[in-house]
Amino acid sequence: MTQMEAARKGIVTPEMERVAADEHISVENLAKNLADGTAIILKNRVAPTKPLGVGKGLRTKVNANLGTSSEVADVQMEIEKARVAVAAGADTIMDLSTGGDLDAVRRAIRGAVNAPLGTVPIYQIAVQVAEERGSIVHMTVDDIFDVLERQAQDGVDFFTVHCGVTLSALERLRKQGRELDIVSRGGSFLVTWMVYNEKENPLYEHYDRLLELAKRYDVALSLGDGMRPGALADATDRAQIEELITLGELTKAAWEQDVQVMIEGPGHVPLDQIELNIELEKKLCHGAPFYVLGPIVTDVAPGYDHIVSAIGGAVAARAGADFLCYVTPSEHLRLPTVEDVREGAIVARIAAHAADIAKGIPGALDWDRKMAKARKQLDWPAQFNLALDSKKAKTMWEEAEEPSNGACTMCGDFCAIKLVEEALNGVTVVV
Amino acid sequence: MTQMEAARKGIVTPEMERVAADEHISVENLAKNLADGTAIILKNRVAPTKPLGVGKGLRTKVNANLGTSSEVADVQMEIEKARVAVAAGADTIMDLSTGGDLDAVRRAIRGAVNAPLGTVPIYQIAVQVAEERGSIVHMTVDDIFDVLERQAQDGVDFFTVHCGVTLSALERLRKQGRELDIVSRGGSFLVTWMVYNEKENPLYEHYDRLLELAKRYDVALSLGDGMRPGALADATDRAQIEELITLGELTKAAWEQDVQVMIEGPGHVPLDQIELNIELEKKLCHGAPFYVLGPIVTDVAPGYDHIVSAIGGAVAARAGADFLCYVTPSEHLRLPTVEDVREGAIVARIAAHAADIAKGIPGALDWDRKMAKARKQLDWPAQFNLALDSKKAKTMWEEAEEPSNGACTMCGDFCAIKLVEEALNGVTVVV
Repeated sequence: MTQMEAARKGIVTPEMERVAADEHISVENLAKNLADGTAIILKNRVAPTKPLGVGKGLRTKVNANLGTSSEVADVQMEIEKARVAVAAGADTIMDLSTGGDLDAVRRAIRGAVNAPLGTVPIYQIAVQVAEERGSIVHMTVDDIFDVLERQAQDGVDFFTVHCGVTLSALERLRKQGRELDIVSRGGSFLVTWMVYNEKENPLYEHYDRLLELAKRYDVALSLGDGMRPGALADATDRAQIEELITLGELTKAAWEQDVQVMIEGPGHVPLDQIELNIELEKKLCHGAPFYVLGPIVTDVAPGYDHIVSAIGGAVAARAGADFLCYVTPSEHLRLPTVEDVREGAIVARIAAHAADIAKGIPGALDWDRKMAKARKQLDWPAQFNLALDSKKAKTMWEEAEEPSNGACTMCGDFCAIKLVEEALNGVTVVV
Repeated sequence: MTQMEAARKGIVTPEMERVAADEHISVENLAKNLADGTAIILKNRVAPTKPLGVGKGLRTKVNANLGTSSEVADVQMEIEKARVAVAAGADTIMDLSTGGDLDAVRRAIRGAVNAPLGTVPIYQIAVQVAEERGSIVHMTVDDIFDVLERQAQDGVDFFTVHCGVTLSALERLRKQGRELDIVSRGGSFLVTWMVYNEKENPLYEHYDRLLELAKRYDVALSLGDGMRPGALADATDRAQIEELITLGELTKAAWEQDVQVMIEGPGHVPLDQIELNIELEKKLCHGAPFYVLGPIVTDVAPGYDHIVSAIGGAVAARAGADFLCYVTPSEHLRLPTVEDVREGAIVARIAAHAADIAKGIPGALDWDRKMAKARKQLDWPAQFNLALDSKKAKTMWEEAEEPSNGACTMCGDFCAIKLVEEALNGVTVVV
């Protein structure tokens, strides 16, 4: 039984109990949301994963992408990235490897962390077919399902599958005219195959078979957005929304089979279109959890795209997005380094937490309240302990010399907190 | 004549012409907004400043705070910070020095950049009175106006004056009960004086004299928010809004004397209260330009407060804030370094630009569209040229080895842009 099926039958699973405890909510509320699809639990039946809830009423989650490329394929570095990302606050890891021995890399990452693991299986399929037969265009349906089965057996908890990249969406894309046609790698593989073979997307054509496999392992399907905009000027266009409509239909079909689903979203989106995108997903996809990449709110800041997407991610999560895919400082420039991964995870965690306060997630504001109390007392060790990145905060403070009055070098003798505390208590020191 | 008075009399000044040209708007539109107070021009009559418009219909501006403290007083470093901030995209500089020879520091910074310069004169007043007579509580009205006159003569373009920190606001603060009472340094100096002397805020009591001085030099008054929240839990409370109501009255009084005014705003504000804060300021202060510090959307990320405030700043500017005061990574920890200043200015500029796209500011999206075109062509030199921080983008890309296909190491052989370009043009390479 999938978690969805159990919830619908009134069965409380150990996974539900664990997620409800982690989230400080009742298992009844969680089960209700699992049953109607507005929340999911990431946990492949055969994997050693610590189960994680994503969706309505739950803390906003953060995913860290990592993995080799054809240019840089260092398994140890990817393992290190996975560990660093989780330590920095990432809730899940996606292995997007396309270089080296892909099975070995995935299994190494699976063994390194117990956070839910996601993949985009079309990457391995494409690499394998290109190696064996020269090009992705020779891919068969069996190639697809062989890899899906192998990855599910290896304990992958969620698959990104670009089932909505249909011939009809592609036609809309051609008519639309974009600055940047398709920037989704998975989408680009499928489009290459579809155009060459003049056939419909096999992940769409064989969606029932995909559901059967997902159900067997309770792998959650993350319905990918191959048509996501890769430039602000392309956001919220007809190709993107056509795909989203299809994803809404596929959501309903998955739910009929008790398969857990989330929806992937953009991408490059101007600040004033983010709420619209979230609301539209929630409507068209019947409240299925929304997993957004960014959003990136300006195209002009390569090197700072973790910050650009923290802005978009916070606004998206506040508007109802449930799951943020981090972006690292390397985005648009290179494969991220270990330090990029760390920075990306921390910054996405900041965005998620800021949104959780606004969403009223239980306990979110309490953390900030404790920090305010520590600040009032000028209790530096407590401030460092409470800091999202304790080490960085402590190091920066220590790099400056501590003023004699216990404040910091920003205000020195003229610390507002000290002055007002003294004034309001009538103990102003007057020489 | 102030710029406001000129605009009201139908006179087009050279400053108006310059600002209109810089902003790609008509001088008539600008003059209309100057006349009704919804926009201002920062330019002290006696200063060599390049005039800068702030307000309705104009590009969102960014300010960089710098200056010595009692602990760290290095004039050369502050000059370097001013230059670095402007080079990184700051539109204005505020000298908040409280350590060393304050006149000398200010004059050095004034000489180093032609961006508008702001100060919080109560800092110099407090430091001087404390040095001469042992404590800020011995401050006289003449002490205040001596420093204001000197700073105006030296070419300061805008003064932060905490005229709304009244006895009545202080009473509201006591009744409210806060996690952190007052975190504004200027506010804390005034409260210390008011409590000790049991008298009303002299900047409120002698507001007419302040207006007379501001009018003579056409120094813009930035009505400070001494009651701004210093913790998320304190946001949008009775003390803060009491002060804002007073600032609305003072705005009207300034406009009666043709004095240019902007309003300062918070501070530490949860994401879901930012729009409310902007809308309330625009209502209570009759559309006067809004200058916000941050907002900081979580208290728990010291070391990353530039990013925390980029989130808040982008949301605030999109909602109508006109001017963002940057926050550096050092906030809450220490006096910022030169590198902190650079990082803070760039990140605030990102937030402002993202908001300007959403605001529909003329030309804002064009920049992003050019970047999208450069990306489509995999034209790396063009991407670096268009990048907000060209050097950083180029360095990061170069640190990784360039793949042979002209893409980047993120996707290597599997570059979505290349694949789709080939597929849609029917030139997919099939081995």
